[in-house]
Amino acid sequence: MTEKKKITPLSKLGEFGLISHLTGDISLHHESTVKGVGDDAAVMDYKGKKMVVTTDLLVEGIHFNLVYTPLKHLGYKAIVVNLSDVYAMNGNPKQVLVSLALSGKFSLEAVDQLYDGIKMACETYKVDLVGGDTTSSLTGLTISVVAMGEVDKGKIAYRNTARVNDLICVSGDLGAAYMGLQLLERERKVFDDSSKSIQPELSGYDYILGRQLKPEARKDIIAALHDNQIVPNAMIDLSDGLSSDLMHICKQSGLGCRVFQDKIPLAEETERAANEMNIEPFIAALNGGEDYELLFTVPLELHDKAMQIKDISFIGHITEAEAGMKFVTNQGSEIELQAQGWNSFGD
Amino acid sequence: MTEKKKITPLSKLGEFGLISHLTGDISLHHESTVKGVGDDAAVMDYKGKKMVVTTDLLVEGIHFNLVYTPLKHLGYKAIVVNLSDVYAMNGNPKQVLVSLALSGKFSLEAVDQLYDGIKMACETYKVDLVGGDTTSSLTGLTISVVAMGEVDKGKIAYRNTARVNDLICVSGDLGAAYMGLQLLERERKVFDDSSKSIQPELSGYDYILGRQLKPEARKDIIAALHDNQIVPNAMIDLSDGLSSDLMHICKQSGLGCRVFQDKIPLAEETERAANEMNIEPFIAALNGGEDYELLFTVPLELHDKAMQIKDISFIGHITEAEAGMKFVTNQGSEIELQAQGWNSFGD
Repeated sequence: MTEKKKITPLSKLGEFGLISHLTGDISLHHESTVKGVGDDAAVMDYKGKKMVVTTDLLVEGIHFNLVYTPLKHLGYKAIVVNLSDVYAMNGNPKQVLVSLALSGKFSLEAVDQLYDGIKMACETYKVDLVGGDTTSSLTGLTISVVAMGEVDKGKIAYRNTARVNDLICVSGDLGAAYMGLQLLERERKVFDDSSKSIQPELSGYDYILGRQLKPEARKDIIAALHDNQIVPNAMIDLSDGLSSDLMHICKQSGLGCRVFQDKIPLAEETERAANEMNIEPFIAALNGGEDYELLFTVPLELHDKAMQIKDISFIGHITEAEAGMKFVTNQGSEIELQAQGWNSFGD
Repeated sequence: MTEKKKITPLSKLGEFGLISHLTGDISLHHESTVKGVGDDAAVMDYKGKKMVVTTDLLVEGIHFNLVYTPLKHLGYKAIVVNLSDVYAMNGNPKQVLVSLALSGKFSLEAVDQLYDGIKMACETYKVDLVGGDTTSSLTGLTISVVAMGEVDKGKIAYRNTARVNDLICVSGDLGAAYMGLQLLERERKVFDDSSKSIQPELSGYDYILGRQLKPEARKDIIAALHDNQIVPNAMIDLSDGLSSDLMHICKQSGLGCRVFQDKIPLAEETERAANEMNIEPFIAALNGGEDYELLFTVPLELHDKAMQIKDISFIGHITEAEAGMKFVTNQGSEIELQAQGWNSFGD
């Protein structure tokens, strides 16, 4: 006998009932959080420190497919991608606000799963959930997250402040989340095309699937930079792909760059999946996106210091604008970088 | 000859092109805005002042109907409803972030209209647009706005700090936005049911239509309270209706209230429209919502001082919890207040 899955319609609770159900057990950790959920607005006190704020909108059918995305992972990811933007300013996230628009297909139990992931991310990254909005929608799920954090005076890392001869550094490895997505999409299509109930072929790819479904933000890198007294000249998080995001730094700084194929960090699973699907691994790294790694530049003289930090690769250097934005292949040919990053308005 | 309306698909610009098109002409006004649009996050410096932050999600088909809502008004309203929450904390809004999810039916020209309204509201209320997110959606338009502001130390007005015998004050008049909506909905249905192209009957109702389509937040009341050195014991903005919002103050403060029908401020047009549509005007005021007026309580001894402020009505007083939350009709009967405010999850 299978236990019947409990399904409670959201209309049974109403908006205020749902909010208190979801936020009733929230505890606050930060001194900067004066007042959280429950009033017209949350109240913060940054006590003279500078504050960074960022927001991202995640739309069902555009940014995620619930066919293969567990709601708990989705909630976790929605928080993480916003925290990643705070880290990319060299900041430390302190508070988040979460807004949800939910269609009638979502039960209370489904929303609880989503919130489990949201709360788990808040716990992991030690941020306070201080507010948001909850409403219905005619179709699907939309998640809007705001993340706020503090940054030490003089330590903010903008995009437009790279300097000539800076080393270009990147954390972790690239292209894995993209290959994870390709794998999930391939199996979804096989499943759609098949009249039989078949199991998707996903074994052996735990790492790249995890990178797509439950990414992490590089809190550890920000801490390591701090511990090693390194303030990057420029920094951005990799959400649209190395190519597109590096171009943001170069264009906004009025400079060029040279990055080298043989320096691009790739995981074994990324290369294996790419080979299996006839994709050039470095193309996945350049244009894939959703890595949520940190891309930053440091002055050449900090090379040895930066070497101390685990899980950082030096992939190239910043040049004068006239030299262009170049990708140097293993064969020595130079390719102009192109912003082929993800564009939701694309044809 | 009619000029052909220009229609530019968003895919022609892409996400980054759209963002720079929309935000290229933004100028920043506040010292607390260190860095606006263009990086991973915006940077603020509140220099030791407390900060309030609030967010609202507006979903097409749930919160607005584009059949009768001009996009410019919608953009204006999306900002105003968020600023209203900042004022309701006794704060002064300084920055907003705006996120849009747009389906394929929206052209660049349509988004420009929406942004015209957004920018007009930012200009009117002197707030800096410092960030956001822009993406596509499968269906319709979703707008997520975040508003941030500063509040003087010791002047924050929470919901849960009303005191027994406080006077209950409300700004402006109530129920007008609700009656405006009823009027628009009536004409939409007539239009839908009719095979002929007929003009909607909206003349003589400019005020209530304006209250629905282009509401204002009560910046002037917050300034007047400040000038008169009045700090409300409790405050909330009227978004869900007087009944529901007053109950928030009472419940969160652990107290009761008595409000009087003959004290409820109603505009002539509100009464006229209500009578025409067989709705009790005071019901529109109690349960209508979207007034974006301020509801606050002050100690009895501040009565004469509060009287100095234009456009404020005293509608009742705060009682012990045991006395309940009562609405006293003109005939002297007492009705228990009920939260019949707007609930998007309602059946």
